[in-house]
Amino acid sequence: MIVGVIGGGQLARMLALAGMPWAHRFRFLDPAADACAGQVGTLVTAAYDCERSLLEFAAQADVVTFDFENVPARSLEFLAGRVAVYPGARALAAAQNRLHEKALFRDLGMATAEFVAVEHAQALPAAVAELGLPAVLKTRTHGYDGKGQWLLRSAADVTAAGRELGRTPALLERLIAFEREVSLIAARGRDGAMAFYPLSENVHRDGMLHTSVCRNRDPLQDRAEAQVQRLLEALDYVGVLAVEFFDCGGELLANEFAPRVHNSGHWTIEGAETSQFENHLRAILGLPLGSTRARGDYAMVNLIGAIPEPAQVLAIPGAHLHDYGKARRPGRKVGHITVACAEPGVLPPELLAL
Amino acid sequence: MIVGVIGGGQLARMLALAGMPWAHRFRFLDPAADACAGQVGTLVTAAYDCERSLLEFAAQADVVTFDFENVPARSLEFLAGRVAVYPGARALAAAQNRLHEKALFRDLGMATAEFVAVEHAQALPAAVAELGLPAVLKTRTHGYDGKGQWLLRSAADVTAAGRELGRTPALLERLIAFEREVSLIAARGRDGAMAFYPLSENVHRDGMLHTSVCRNRDPLQDRAEAQVQRLLEALDYVGVLAVEFFDCGGELLANEFAPRVHNSGHWTIEGAETSQFENHLRAILGLPLGSTRARGDYAMVNLIGAIPEPAQVLAIPGAHLHDYGKARRPGRKVGHITVACAEPGVLPPELLAL
Repeated sequence: MIVGVIGGGQLARMLALAGMPWAHRFRFLDPAADACAGQVGTLVTAAYDCERSLLEFAAQADVVTFDFENVPARSLEFLAGRVAVYPGARALAAAQNRLHEKALFRDLGMATAEFVAVEHAQALPAAVAELGLPAVLKTRTHGYDGKGQWLLRSAADVTAAGRELGRTPALLERLIAFEREVSLIAARGRDGAMAFYPLSENVHRDGMLHTSVCRNRDPLQDRAEAQVQRLLEALDYVGVLAVEFFDCGGELLANEFAPRVHNSGHWTIEGAETSQFENHLRAILGLPLGSTRARGDYAMVNLIGAIPEPAQVLAIPGAHLHDYGKARRPGRKVGHITVACAEPGVLPPELLAL
Repeated sequence: MIVGVIGGGQLARMLALAGMPWAHRFRFLDPAADACAGQVGTLVTAAYDCERSLLEFAAQADVVTFDFENVPARSLEFLAGRVAVYPGARALAAAQNRLHEKALFRDLGMATAEFVAVEHAQALPAAVAELGLPAVLKTRTHGYDGKGQWLLRSAADVTAAGRELGRTPALLERLIAFEREVSLIAARGRDGAMAFYPLSENVHRDGMLHTSVCRNRDPLQDRAEAQVQRLLEALDYVGVLAVEFFDCGGELLANEFAPRVHNSGHWTIEGAETSQFENHLRAILGLPLGSTRARGDYAMVNLIGAIPEPAQVLAIPGAHLHDYGKARRPGRKVGHITVACAEPGVLPPELLAL
């Protein structure tokens, strides 16, 4: 079987590593000639919207998926009918527009932070007057890892953000004072069967995910699952999907969803009976989903910009190193470490000292 | 880092899959142009003893290992000094000659079945007279998966086996009535640190391994470890090694060792905190060994000649499928299934019914 992945980053790479034990081969389409998934499969260098390349790509794959939510939904629409594509263009499109995403959450009875549409910079003052400060201004599209976001605390922030925003459509959200951010990784098969991992509790630094800790038996697990189940069914979703929530005193506010495997689920590679990557493949290939049970109190630490000395990492009991084979650059996710914690959520001090 | 593996079978393939999360790349040298490891790395098609190919191979690798005990030990000797080679030629040579292997066991105080050297067919009757029947005649070299062995129960068997043996040097062993066959997979690092997996209990069918069951807290574990520790140290071994023992009423008789990762350790991929493949890489790369603790009561079933329908396999709770990407042929190991057992050693009935 040949699996085509649009996007050739670390998610595509780890997806391929999950599928290689089944003797599947992987092809990746990515505009970057050095996309790191190319080290573990065949890399086709092309723009995400190059129809000729997409056609060729579809002809050489049995099923197509993607690893990046900013792949144009139109590219998936173009492929649909030519090859099996999971998740579908509709799910991807819903995730690409933060206003549609929030509206979908609301329609499904999923609580969110209060928000107001902002058509362009000129509409910003009225939106601020309506919601009050502090608030977060977000572009509707092309945001990830904190990009396309402005935290507004003062009138000066509003003016500065408005200047940067210009004519870009956006939305304004009330800033939420949350106790913690959690994410639920879920999988839905072609037959509609669903599976949910234990909640991940996530800590960000400088707008990027820093650590994810698996929370077995979290009191909010059932509520999160009920909500994500509605989302999966509404989108007729096939594959793995992640929803980020704010936990505000036990109330869950849905923040965003990613129509793909997710950084906060990387602990599942060693820490769950079936990894999120394997379950994404099982889903899109029409195979039964695997158990999402955690094997213990696992946690993950992202490696940003650099990889510590492997000997130091691997000397930590229960630590597993993942190096994505990417050129090291400040602010770039280049790897992660998974570790089994002796106590839930307590990372080994040697790991934090790396 | 580029890891060169002499031999490109499924063991090399799974070794590469274990190292790809560290962004290592793999090159394989194998005489077969369709060697299955070539699907996950660069395959160099050459005879194991082609010095020109070995030189080129060494020049393009940071470290060299092998996946097959019948790689000529001379090839490793030739490479030594040109590139780091683990395990070394001496360990490989010791495993390649069944008489030397048994003598080494005896020298290390490891009990074995009684045996007698047989220089060629003409010496066989005297050996049979000495040991008695039933006995097993084995060629000294090039045996694996039951090849090069004759079970002798009668004078007619002796005559027939002698005719087939001809001038090939062999040894005759007393046939052991054992309760079970167990194997101990062990790893030794470049720094001399050692780690031992829980014993695997192995069942053969038609001379090939059929199932291996991980035996946590086996009463013979400590005794097996003490013996294998002596072997690892005597060979100044670096890498993963497997020793097969017969359990005769609680007495361990060492049967043979494989200077490599071993089929009876495939359950460690999902079933141990660190797989035998990752630990082999850790050892030969000079990294700290990882925990060999089992994550539960795991078992492995070999897939010989054919792969069942993946959907049927993956519907079994806790089952993981490994397809080596090899052409299906009767009697050929083409994959395996790992499964977590609800009770130690009790395989799910759905799995046995496949």
